[in-house]
Amino acid sequence: MPTTISFARGAPHPDALSGDLIAECTRLALEADATRILSYGTGNGYPPLREVLASWHGAEPGQVLITNGSLQGFVFLLESHLRPGDVVAVESPTYDRALLQLKLHGMDVLPIPLDGDGMDVEALAASCAAGRTPRLLYTIPNFQNPSGATLSAERRARLVEVCEEYDILIVEDDPYGRLRFEGEDLPGIWRIAPPGRVIFTSSFSKTVAPGLRVGYLVSPPEIAGDLAAAASRTYISPALLSEAAIHQLIVTDRLEPNIAHVTELMRERRDAMSAGMRHMPEGTAYVPPQGGFFCWLTLPEGLSADELFEPAAAAGIAYVKGSDCVLGGGERTLRLAYSGVSPAEIEEGMERLGAVFSAAAVTS
Amino acid sequence: MPTTISFARGAPHPDALSGDLIAECTRLALEADATRILSYGTGNGYPPLREVLASWHGAEPGQVLITNGSLQGFVFLLESHLRPGDVVAVESPTYDRALLQLKLHGMDVLPIPLDGDGMDVEALAASCAAGRTPRLLYTIPNFQNPSGATLSAERRARLVEVCEEYDILIVEDDPYGRLRFEGEDLPGIWRIAPPGRVIFTSSFSKTVAPGLRVGYLVSPPEIAGDLAAAASRTYISPALLSEAAIHQLIVTDRLEPNIAHVTELMRERRDAMSAGMRHMPEGTAYVPPQGGFFCWLTLPEGLSADELFEPAAAAGIAYVKGSDCVLGGGERTLRLAYSGVSPAEIEEGMERLGAVFSAAAVTS
Repeated sequence: MPTTISFARGAPHPDALSGDLIAECTRLALEADATRILSYGTGNGYPPLREVLASWHGAEPGQVLITNGSLQGFVFLLESHLRPGDVVAVESPTYDRALLQLKLHGMDVLPIPLDGDGMDVEALAASCAAGRTPRLLYTIPNFQNPSGATLSAERRARLVEVCEEYDILIVEDDPYGRLRFEGEDLPGIWRIAPPGRVIFTSSFSKTVAPGLRVGYLVSPPEIAGDLAAAASRTYISPALLSEAAIHQLIVTDRLEPNIAHVTELMRERRDAMSAGMRHMPEGTAYVPPQGGFFCWLTLPEGLSADELFEPAAAAGIAYVKGSDCVLGGGERTLRLAYSGVSPAEIEEGMERLGAVFSAAAVTS
Repeated sequence: MPTTISFARGAPHPDALSGDLIAECTRLALEADATRILSYGTGNGYPPLREVLASWHGAEPGQVLITNGSLQGFVFLLESHLRPGDVVAVESPTYDRALLQLKLHGMDVLPIPLDGDGMDVEALAASCAAGRTPRLLYTIPNFQNPSGATLSAERRARLVEVCEEYDILIVEDDPYGRLRFEGEDLPGIWRIAPPGRVIFTSSFSKTVAPGLRVGYLVSPPEIAGDLAAAASRTYISPALLSEAAIHQLIVTDRLEPNIAHVTELMRERRDAMSAGMRHMPEGTAYVPPQGGFFCWLTLPEGLSADELFEPAAAAGIAYVKGSDCVLGGGERTLRLAYSGVSPAEIEEGMERLGAVFSAAAVTS
């Protein structure tokens, strides 16, 4: 069996990770503030980093909760602010780990279809008009996981309108937004919505390093207090060394060059994957993403990404089944992450995967 | 109002924390293994540290779960292994944060009295014989939080016997055991119990630095898998940079000298607090701890540590009410942590606190 090329994991390639950079930022942080970093802190995280993040978002530091990865913050939100049976709308497909947590917490998940311009906001409006109104909406507006789609400016405005009308709290999860290859940045939902409507969440896992586990939520003040209390109850304070290193990365002006570097690495990989699409069977649908980590494929009629998962694995290719990212169906879809592999591996992997899919297309 | 001297927080003094040491260990870790440290890992934590911890406990690495502080691991255990209504025995008094989590998870808490030799194991046996048998027992056998008491060797053996007879899973929480000032180490419950009977948990918060948030559980294999799955679902992997720094601290032989240093700092503080007991009103009961962070006081009849909390605060002294560490009662008791203050502050603080208590004793 050939060495596996994994298109499964939404993780940055080792070339995007710099041990020297993090060692230097950690050293600077400990030189400046060792006692605070090495002591217990509060549940909401390292205060200097909270101040920087608050300033990015025009918020107060008290609104910022820094967590050991942003998924942990989402779990605190589910635990402290929602109840089993609450209706929560998600894009369909959506981030598989968020979907799993919603199910584990007993939420009534309302899937909203998505196309190349992101969530179909009119479908959300129609559901509300028909009496099925979510309490919370979870959206990844930029280079969405798993679809790669970006919510258009028009739809952002309309989304805020609908959520205002039906009093829906929006969770805007934006870990990929800074990794744009081309086109213009679109206004964040946090920016365009009235205060109190949006919880913004992001992390440094995609732009700096996932192993640091530094994610954060910016919440309306009345929610932020509950989240900080949940964090304090669970782990007293988050891991402060990583947070302090990220703080130094930012204040010493090393973050932006790092983002530019990572963006360029990801752009090369996106291009390699786009080029590799020529190996896919005719009729495979694919919209090239303008940023982020992921491509989303819809196979031609008659092919099942679920059924082809094992044959692909036998050919040394791993991917995420689309069916894992939706509540039901999705068998013809799959997610390919180009983020964690080299352009050469992408070319090789797409050729292998195309061979598996094409062979099945011939026999189907 | 005078500057507050806090005897409230079970945290190491800044003199016990070395930024240079952690910076150096972080640098070594990133030099050796940057890609793994900076990438997503698995839910159970940094593999080289898991191997070391497993070897300490005669366990397999798969039995070790490293968490962002050990409290987080306890929460995973409650979430994945227990159900609301399960009977859980604790020492009375016990660690307030563990007690809070038990209540939040709907456990039926069974308090077992404690004296200078630790938990009254015969009281546990009597409860079981009377039909009230816990599913799980949570114990801090060494320099207990909050009492400072250590479970005697005889009681350890008897505890294992009782838990074997009634099939009670033991959680042995031992963050303080390495900080012994005098006397002999007693055998760990993990060591003397048959396999499968004990979950051992500890952390580097007391021996190295709490801000690193590196705690761990060593569990029977059938439980370890569930805990790792809960961790992965919640935050993918814990913060690996701190874990890798701790790993370097250990393999470069810097941990033992650090423990010796911290132990000496804490011994000085325990001595200062013992000396300061002369300021307490007659009839105050106090057993000097042989290690760890805490002294436990029982005030004379007629005095309430709950009622004296505010007068003490007005005199610039903070402590933990004993009533926060028990299910009911405990008004005459309080916990004094000497760990986070200097010997001079301890002398000053005990004088102030003694004045508050003695004034109340006169009028009561």
